[in-house]
Amino acid sequence: MTVHVVVVGGGFGGLNAARALASHGARVTLIDRENFHLFQPLLYQVATSGLNPADIAYPLRAVFHAAPQVQVRIGEVVNADLDARHVVLADGTRVPYDHLVLAAGATTADFGIPGVAEHALGLKRLADAPRLRGEVLRRFEEADAKPELVAQGWLTTMIVGGGPTGVEMAGALVELFSKVLAKDFPRLDVSRAKVVLVEMGDEVLPPFSPQSRRHAAEQLRRRGVDVLTGCRVQRVDGTHVWLDDGQSVSAATLVWAAGVTAVALPAQLGLSTTRDGRAVVSEDLSVPGHPHVWIVGDLAAAKDAGGQMLPQVAQPAIQGGRHVAQQILRRHAGLATRPFVYRDKGSMATIGRHAAVADLPWGIHLKGVVGWLAWLFLHLLTLMGFRNRLSVLLNWAWNYATWDRGTRLILETPSRRRSGEGMAA
Amino acid sequence: MTVHVVVVGGGFGGLNAARALASHGARVTLIDRENFHLFQPLLYQVATSGLNPADIAYPLRAVFHAAPQVQVRIGEVVNADLDARHVVLADGTRVPYDHLVLAAGATTADFGIPGVAEHALGLKRLADAPRLRGEVLRRFEEADAKPELVAQGWLTTMIVGGGPTGVEMAGALVELFSKVLAKDFPRLDVSRAKVVLVEMGDEVLPPFSPQSRRHAAEQLRRRGVDVLTGCRVQRVDGTHVWLDDGQSVSAATLVWAAGVTAVALPAQLGLSTTRDGRAVVSEDLSVPGHPHVWIVGDLAAAKDAGGQMLPQVAQPAIQGGRHVAQQILRRHAGLATRPFVYRDKGSMATIGRHAAVADLPWGIHLKGVVGWLAWLFLHLLTLMGFRNRLSVLLNWAWNYATWDRGTRLILETPSRRRSGEGMAA
Repeated sequence: MTVHVVVVGGGFGGLNAARALASHGARVTLIDRENFHLFQPLLYQVATSGLNPADIAYPLRAVFHAAPQVQVRIGEVVNADLDARHVVLADGTRVPYDHLVLAAGATTADFGIPGVAEHALGLKRLADAPRLRGEVLRRFEEADAKPELVAQGWLTTMIVGGGPTGVEMAGALVELFSKVLAKDFPRLDVSRAKVVLVEMGDEVLPPFSPQSRRHAAEQLRRRGVDVLTGCRVQRVDGTHVWLDDGQSVSAATLVWAAGVTAVALPAQLGLSTTRDGRAVVSEDLSVPGHPHVWIVGDLAAAKDAGGQMLPQVAQPAIQGGRHVAQQILRRHAGLATRPFVYRDKGSMATIGRHAAVADLPWGIHLKGVVGWLAWLFLHLLTLMGFRNRLSVLLNWAWNYATWDRGTRLILETPSRRRSGEGMAA
Repeated sequence: MTVHVVVVGGGFGGLNAARALASHGARVTLIDRENFHLFQPLLYQVATSGLNPADIAYPLRAVFHAAPQVQVRIGEVVNADLDARHVVLADGTRVPYDHLVLAAGATTADFGIPGVAEHALGLKRLADAPRLRGEVLRRFEEADAKPELVAQGWLTTMIVGGGPTGVEMAGALVELFSKVLAKDFPRLDVSRAKVVLVEMGDEVLPPFSPQSRRHAAEQLRRRGVDVLTGCRVQRVDGTHVWLDDGQSVSAATLVWAAGVTAVALPAQLGLSTTRDGRAVVSEDLSVPGHPHVWIVGDLAAAKDAGGQMLPQVAQPAIQGGRHVAQQILRRHAGLATRPFVYRDKGSMATIGRHAAVADLPWGIHLKGVVGWLAWLFLHLLTLMGFRNRLSVLLNWAWNYATWDRGTRLILETPSRRRSGEGMAA
């Protein structure tokens, strides 16, 4: 009999699991809150007016046009009965399964810091990006109407978190400010529009090689980003940020890229979780004691060969998704499962035009123009859908040739709304 | 001394007035609630997943990069003192002027019909389009989860108003349903997804030539649109629409393209207005008794040579904007003003692939493929910005070649929100 797998989450992990399962004839129900797969690595470019939302999103139903055995269902999984083997959606529907793949990802974590949930803007879901874009542009409009605001830090954006998202966001924002908004606001002293990047570790891009970390920090500083390392945010009130070294920084816009926590689902289901909410998994990525439940991507407390927890980025999710698909088919065929072996394909981050760092396997490190071209090429290649690739290519070529950013629109009504999913404390 | 003109509204009328004034050295303050000029004729294509919002919007500040004498100000004009010659913004700022151009446009009118303000979706502002797109897609997702909803009209969209917006929206929706969503939802009987177009007059496209009206109705019906003429909406409750001929239609989505009313500003300023809120104007488009106040576009009760009120579309606004710019300069130079002479350049509306109607000057009528190509070409040509043209061309080519619609994303959280500006009763 055909095995029926419920996959929760249409991100890199869930999508790859569903595709691999479908290609081997399994029946799949893919459940997501959104009707599209999001290419998260380019989300910061939508937030900085470089790309359209639709350039980095691909309709989930379109992925499976040729696979009638995959059923897409938009909804939120709020519970599951792991013994009776069904999940429960927010509308009360029960969806039975033979195997369950949890790939629901992570959400922005505010670590309980006062003011963050109310005042900071997250960047995880697609709708967050045009909202953040609108907030930044609105601060400039407000300062243009009341120039005295500039001295109060109205044009300062603080980005908390020096991982790839924070670094790429910081680099793209200074470019937006100095090359685009300086022309849009000739009466404003845009040189006073600061981007402050705060990282609690000693250096930005902590998981990268020492030379990449140094190069990234140097490039960010040269481009005008204030890089503050070794300090944490203690409190936030919408116009100021207080750091634990005693400083307070005036910043009207606060971007929270400080960290993610796994969605609450594993804990709700009574599974063992780590401190950051990830589900404890066996070597084959199944849940100990629940051989029909599998965890993939940001949600999995999976480790590499050296015992290090895997980073919450695309590659572990993609590889994990494919791995659990194979193991489900093996278990269904009565075969023993195999342990998950993560292959590190390297890490990349771009700082801006002609500047990126890449740590590749076999000790290869790229930087500068070469790293930047590698970054562009790889992202274009891994983006889903030919139309999306064309549109991204067109926008990149345009932005490169003209220093323009065509999508700098304020579409939201003024409000300090957070990520659609809220932040987890 | 340089004349200072305040232009309220960055649509076709205000933008053309500001450009013409600036090119003759006048100082201009252009005030709009949005930070972009919107190419409204293609708004329905954003609402039906064919184009990106940024494809049809152009940043106002970018329009005037090379014109430092034009100052763009984002804000809402809430009052004016026509004797002291200043306008008042919502934040209390007073902006003085030598001449005032009111080009604030029109808003969706619900004519006081019960339920319309709560349940109908307007299509005037850019943010309305992704919202409408999300609502339509959400109805399909809901029906996919609960197929019994289909029999209750859950997939039926009623469009009220048989003008160009209603006709183009209806044509684009049936294409979206039959060519795209039918593939996305293989388990749904998408042939039961109806589009109902309601027009209170005897025929759709009332201002068009008889042959264009007939052709448009015939093409709409052939493509599967239910065209109901000669009837009005009496009441709406979110799932049903009651018409004045006694029928009630089950329709979970209601698009209100029935009519516009000028924004409330002229009436608030104590100007004489027509029944639909337009300001009464002299032959030169100034306000009788207020030689320093000028009205342009949808807001002006201007007439053509035959004494017919001009339609509330792009051409009268573009021509009116240029006209008042010239008259302001003439009056400032002590010359007599000239009457506004409207040149009818014709009307066009597209019904769908290979189908459009165009009434051009000298009695030329186009239809079918020729009309459709003329429509595509003209809209591409009049769109502002090279990047936008490229992006629209890319999307059109893609949609044409693949029958795909790449931007079918649900970005809004579920809610029945109306146009950002609300409807006027």
